[in-house]
Amino acid sequence: MEKLVLAIDLGGTKTKVGLVTLSGRVSHRTYLSTRSYAHSKAALIVALVESCNKLLQDYNVSKNSICGIGIGLPGPIDYAKGVVNFLPNIPHWERVPLKEIIQKKLKVPTFIDNDVNLITLAEWKYGAGKGAKNILGMTLGTGVGGGLVVDGNIYRGASFSAGEIGHMPINESGPVCNCGGSACLESYVGNNAILKQARRIFKKPDITLEQLSAMAGREKDRRAIKLWQEVGKKIGIALAGAINLLNPERIIIGGGVANAGIFLFAAIRKTVSLRAMPTQRAAVKIVPAKLGDDAGLIGAMLLVKEGLKLKG
Amino acid sequence: MEKLVLAIDLGGTKTKVGLVTLSGRVSHRTYLSTRSYAHSKAALIVALVESCNKLLQDYNVSKNSICGIGIGLPGPIDYAKGVVNFLPNIPHWERVPLKEIIQKKLKVPTFIDNDVNLITLAEWKYGAGKGAKNILGMTLGTGVGGGLVVDGNIYRGASFSAGEIGHMPINESGPVCNCGGSACLESYVGNNAILKQARRIFKKPDITLEQLSAMAGREKDRRAIKLWQEVGKKIGIALAGAINLLNPERIIIGGGVANAGIFLFAAIRKTVSLRAMPTQRAAVKIVPAKLGDDAGLIGAMLLVKEGLKLKG
Repeated sequence: MEKLVLAIDLGGTKTKVGLVTLSGRVSHRTYLSTRSYAHSKAALIVALVESCNKLLQDYNVSKNSICGIGIGLPGPIDYAKGVVNFLPNIPHWERVPLKEIIQKKLKVPTFIDNDVNLITLAEWKYGAGKGAKNILGMTLGTGVGGGLVVDGNIYRGASFSAGEIGHMPINESGPVCNCGGSACLESYVGNNAILKQARRIFKKPDITLEQLSAMAGREKDRRAIKLWQEVGKKIGIALAGAINLLNPERIIIGGGVANAGIFLFAAIRKTVSLRAMPTQRAAVKIVPAKLGDDAGLIGAMLLVKEGLKLKG
Repeated sequence: MEKLVLAIDLGGTKTKVGLVTLSGRVSHRTYLSTRSYAHSKAALIVALVESCNKLLQDYNVSKNSICGIGIGLPGPIDYAKGVVNFLPNIPHWERVPLKEIIQKKLKVPTFIDNDVNLITLAEWKYGAGKGAKNILGMTLGTGVGGGLVVDGNIYRGASFSAGEIGHMPINESGPVCNCGGSACLESYVGNNAILKQARRIFKKPDITLEQLSAMAGREKDRRAIKLWQEVGKKIGIALAGAINLLNPERIIIGGGVANAGIFLFAAIRKTVSLRAMPTQRAAVKIVPAKLGDDAGLIGAMLLVKEGLKLKG
C-alpha cells in the first residue's frame, strides 16, 4: 500500500486539506472555510481534524497508510517545538502547541512550519526551483512572504523565522508596516497597498487586483502598466539587496499578484539588473512559481519526509 | 612537529603574512606594503612568495611543517576554481588563477577566498561568534564587507559572492555606488562617505576617522555624535533587512569604523529594535568583533582546514 501524507495548508481565508503521495502527487483534496471557524481557535482545530477524518473516510483510505501529517501556517512557527507563535491574520492563535494537539487527536506524527517555507521547498523539489541549490521563494499576497532553501534544506534561522523578504526596508523612512517596522517592502506592495493606490488612481472604490492585471495586460492601460511597473521596481530593490546578500541561484515568485504578468516581471528584472552586483546578478534567475495552488500541500508532504528522515 | 598554515591577508594598503597553528594561534608574522607592488600584478605575486619564503627562513620553519596556504583577498573570488575575479581597490587583478600560481611556486596546497568570509569564519570559531550557529559578519572600512556562516560553514552562494551587506540598498534612490548600484549602504557609510560628510560639517579638509571618533567619545562634540548616530541608523536599517531575511543568531561588526564606539553601536541597536521583526530581533545579538587584526590570518588557516578536510 502506497504511503501518504495528510497535508494541511491553512490560509487566512481558505484551508486546503489533501492526501499527497511521497512522490509529490496530490491524490485527493478538500477545502474548508477558515473564516467560518476563525472566531475560535478550538473550533478551527476541531474542523481541521474532522476534515482529515472525512477525507480518509470519503476516499476509503486506511489510517495505516498515513505516515505523517504536515501543516503549513501563515505566520511565525517554532518548528522545533511545533508551536504556532502567532498568526497575523487569524486571531487567538498565540503560542499554540499545534503539533502536539494534532498528534494526540489523530495519532500520527505531525510537523508544522511556515507556509511559505513549505511552498519554497515544494518549488525547489518539483517546480520552478528544480535543480538549483540555493533558492529564495517569495509569495505576493496580502502579506509578502519568503522562504529560503540552502543546499537542499529549508534554512530556518536562529528562531525559525528566516526568509522574510517582505520585511526588508526599501527606504530609510516610509509607511508603518504591520510588523511594527517601517518602509518594509510589504507596506508598499502588499495587496492592500496596491489596491489603495489603484482606488486612488482610477477612482474605483471596488477595483480588484484581477481587474488591475487585465487593465495592464489586455487593455494596455498606461496608468495600470505604470502602477505594476512601480510595484515591480520596489520588489526589485528588495530583491537586489537579497541577491547581493545571499547570491541565490534562483528566485521564485508566486502568489496572486505574480499573475500581473510581464510588466511586473520585466520591471523586477530591470531593477535587479540596475541594482544588484555583477557577479550575483549573473548567477540568478528570477522566475514565476510553477506549482500554483498545490505548492503548500506538496511542501507539507516534504516537511513530513524531512521530519521522519525519509529519503528521496 | 606541529603543523602550520601559511596565511596571507592581502589588503589594499598592507598585506599580512603569518604562520598560524591549527589551533588558531598566529605564531609568526610579517607585513608588506601592497601599495609598493600595486603597479604590477606579477610584482605583487613575487613579493608575496618572497615574504612566505623569508618568513619560513627567518624563523627556521621547515616547509614540511606547512600543510597548506590560505589567502584572503578584498574582492569577489571564485572559490572553487581558485580564481580572483577582480579586486576593486587593486588594479590589474582580473581573472587571476592565484590558487594555481601560488601552488606551483610554493608547492603547497593553496586555497583562496574573500577576506571578509575568512574574518567571519575566524570570529565564529575563536572570537565574538563562538558558540553561535548562524552569523553575519560585517567589516566597516573603505568598503563595507560581509560574510555569512551557516551551520558552521561559510555560506558562499551560487557564484561565491554571498554576504555583501554593504550593497543592500537602503533607499529607492540615492548616491551611485562603486558596485554600479545606487543607495547601497556602503555609499552612505563607507569611510569616504563618512569623511566627506565630516569635512563638510567641521570645515576641516584633513579630518580623520580617529579624530571623528575622539570628538564623539572624549570631547562629546554634539555634531560628531550626531554624525555617528546617523551612520549607525543607516547600518541598522540594512541590518534590520538582513535580520528579517536571515534570522541570524549573532551579527559581528569589525573594521576601523567599528571603533567609533558606543554611539555607533547604540544607534545600530536602537534602529534594529525599531525596524526588525519581534521574533528575529529577540534572537540576535549585535556585537563588536574580538580578534582584531589577526582575524584574516586565522580565517585563512580555517580555510585551509576546510579545504583539506582537517577536523576540529
